[in-house]
Amino acid sequence: MTSVQDLIRKKRDGETLANEEIKTFIDAVTNKTIQDCQTGAMLMAIWQKGMVPEEVETLTREMMSSGEVMSWPKEWAGLVVDKHSTGGVGDKVSLVLAPALAACGCKVPMISGRGLAHTGGTLDKLESIPGFNIHQSAAQILEILGSVGCCIVGQTESLVPADRVLYDLRDATSTVNSLPLITASIVSKKGAESLSALVLDVKFGRAALYKDLDSARELAQSLVHAGNLLGMRTAAALSCMDAVIGRYVGNSLEVMESLETLKGRGPEDLMELVTTLGGLLLQMTGSVSDLSEGRRKISDAVIGGAALSKFQAMMEAQGVANETARSLCSAHSDYYSVLRKAEHQMELKMPTDGEVLDVDGLALAEVLHKLGAGRSKVGEPVNHSVGAELLVSLGQRVSKGASWLRLHFETPRPTADQIDRLQGALTVGSNTHTHTHTLVRELLPPQ
Amino acid sequence: MTSVQDLIRKKRDGETLANEEIKTFIDAVTNKTIQDCQTGAMLMAIWQKGMVPEEVETLTREMMSSGEVMSWPKEWAGLVVDKHSTGGVGDKVSLVLAPALAACGCKVPMISGRGLAHTGGTLDKLESIPGFNIHQSAAQILEILGSVGCCIVGQTESLVPADRVLYDLRDATSTVNSLPLITASIVSKKGAESLSALVLDVKFGRAALYKDLDSARELAQSLVHAGNLLGMRTAAALSCMDAVIGRYVGNSLEVMESLETLKGRGPEDLMELVTTLGGLLLQMTGSVSDLSEGRRKISDAVIGGAALSKFQAMMEAQGVANETARSLCSAHSDYYSVLRKAEHQMELKMPTDGEVLDVDGLALAEVLHKLGAGRSKVGEPVNHSVGAELLVSLGQRVSKGASWLRLHFETPRPTADQIDRLQGALTVGSNTHTHTHTLVRELLPPQ
Repeated sequence: MTSVQDLIRKKRDGETLANEEIKTFIDAVTNKTIQDCQTGAMLMAIWQKGMVPEEVETLTREMMSSGEVMSWPKEWAGLVVDKHSTGGVGDKVSLVLAPALAACGCKVPMISGRGLAHTGGTLDKLESIPGFNIHQSAAQILEILGSVGCCIVGQTESLVPADRVLYDLRDATSTVNSLPLITASIVSKKGAESLSALVLDVKFGRAALYKDLDSARELAQSLVHAGNLLGMRTAAALSCMDAVIGRYVGNSLEVMESLETLKGRGPEDLMELVTTLGGLLLQMTGSVSDLSEGRRKISDAVIGGAALSKFQAMMEAQGVANETARSLCSAHSDYYSVLRKAEHQMELKMPTDGEVLDVDGLALAEVLHKLGAGRSKVGEPVNHSVGAELLVSLGQRVSKGASWLRLHFETPRPTADQIDRLQGALTVGSNTHTHTHTLVRELLPPQ
Repeated sequence: MTSVQDLIRKKRDGETLANEEIKTFIDAVTNKTIQDCQTGAMLMAIWQKGMVPEEVETLTREMMSSGEVMSWPKEWAGLVVDKHSTGGVGDKVSLVLAPALAACGCKVPMISGRGLAHTGGTLDKLESIPGFNIHQSAAQILEILGSVGCCIVGQTESLVPADRVLYDLRDATSTVNSLPLITASIVSKKGAESLSALVLDVKFGRAALYKDLDSARELAQSLVHAGNLLGMRTAAALSCMDAVIGRYVGNSLEVMESLETLKGRGPEDLMELVTTLGGLLLQMTGSVSDLSEGRRKISDAVIGGAALSKFQAMMEAQGVANETARSLCSAHSDYYSVLRKAEHQMELKMPTDGEVLDVDGLALAEVLHKLGAGRSKVGEPVNHSVGAELLVSLGQRVSKGASWLRLHFETPRPTADQIDRLQGALTVGSNTHTHTHTLVRELLPPQ
């Protein structure tokens, strides 16, 4: 049998690894028979030399098979769907999309992640709801999908164990942004959910992993290719992540905005993402004939309240008290009677008259992260109450002295430098050409 | 301060690391504050992207300073010398060269290594002499150099600790043959010996790390450059390592051949290496005016018996009983009265009449390694008695059925396949052009 050293040497020299060699590597990672220094070297060799599509497919498949692979009742065939996003600022799409899809008859075993650095995590957002339990076993997931149709849960111990090991080591070894490694990590986890269809929200821009559209498109193509090879119908949207999705950033604030959206009062950009991603999934399950019909069906589920009912049922199924869930979902909910409000609020003012040309979502997210909204290391707690509300829209004309941002904070308090950074996130001026507020810039439609 | 991740990312992207960044990396390796996966990734990034000469210099210097650096009495200024070889088959040069240099007035604190895979180690050879103790403290080394002039010892715990960590990880991560890493590893250890002059025997050919002269020259240039920058006068010889140095391979057999050489009965090729490498060192210490005078002086010390006396004194200083040392060094020594003889000998026969055109040193060494002469993993014991005697010379005409190789073995016994492999190491034919038996093909003389 080939030794691990031989495998590293082969990839080091830019050779293509055979299927059984990739299996040997992933087995060794899963069984912890490979030394960490060797995994680090292999990850760096893959980062440097890349992988051909066949290697990526095998890597993805072997990672998927490193643990349990879910199975679903026969009658759900074609209905099990999920979405993955590459991470943004104010990205609460999952909280609206999962129940909307369930309302359209889909089964959505949404396995989400936690936030790291400036990127928020869906699980952290949901945990700002008292009682919400993101830990659900495979049996419980099956039960909730049967009764409600959707759940949003953390990765179980038994699912894709190879990815958990590699993910931590990629972070430590500066090998996160490698196309084959990202592809295998994302698609293997979705593959283990045994999905019928998968949609990817691949973000580009200032606050995204990839800064430009071309790199994001390359990743999207790689993900779509690998997803299809694993037997899931897969499509992707390329969406701009320069500013903020919606108006609220921060865990409990984003739950509020999601609930408002589920009550038909959501911001346009969030609705655009939800209907596009949901529409693509409905198209892939065959329940609609084209994307525009899919968009309309998702929009109806959100505006008409069917998605809100699903969200309420999902909260209850995942441990939230009936009364709490009902209160959050009532038409005129007093959110702060349930969700904890930060001790302090502070409003930032417009420095001059003018049009809001830009808000730097990355700067905003990085300051909020430092104030406790995010974590720097896996396992650290977050402060669910910390966040910010954008009080203006891009393109809006605002007068000097008017408030443009409301900051929610506790301890640590914002420093003068941080306030300056936030104020610097705002660009005011006068623009002659019309703004586009559309986030989705390109689609990789289902084939 | 820059994080380790940032350093890895920088080298990953092919950037040049600043001096303080290399120091941060080596400090982290020495203090074990870096994760093994990170060291593995950094080694692979260095392998892939290389280092500019300034980085190699800093890496070498920081590794050297990671532990104790030896210091010598003022009156030895200019006299402290050592040799490093990149490893060969039957390479017993150190055993002859160290005492010859001492006989010429040099101080030789020779720090050697153990064998690994097919490459023999000087320390293993010496340990076939009953009582020989390769473990000597810095104080003991100083004392032996004062009384005898040379010693051959193992690396102490306190010398270049960063190299010990990196060396093991390089082996595990297939990053051994990286020019900057090899250079820093070799030169940092010699730098910590605070040498006045250093000579390098860089081997190329079938049984060497580098197969071709050009790669070996590149390494030699890198080593010479780094050595000079560290304040040692440094020169190198490029020598061919296709067959075997001398006639004997195996630990105790090589000790015998070294003793025979010190008694003036050594093979030409070994004497060529000893006089060239020693001559270069004498030239660099300024005790001779040119290389040919240096060569002659070394040769005189070997042929005239002065080197033998130094070897005897060194053995006694390093723990060998006086009687044993005297017996080994007597003119007509019965070596097997002191050194253990293997239980079994077997002679391989010439398959046909003809001229001995080639002996594959790598094949020979690999079979001997499997029979116990070498080790596969650091820390494994070796069988000092296992080895082989070449009974013919290259270019010699020999008759069918005559013995060409005597194999010394115990348990395991050689398999039929191994015998075939040994027999296959011999090429017999008829050659029209004259053989060159010169091993040294090129010099990088002192500047």
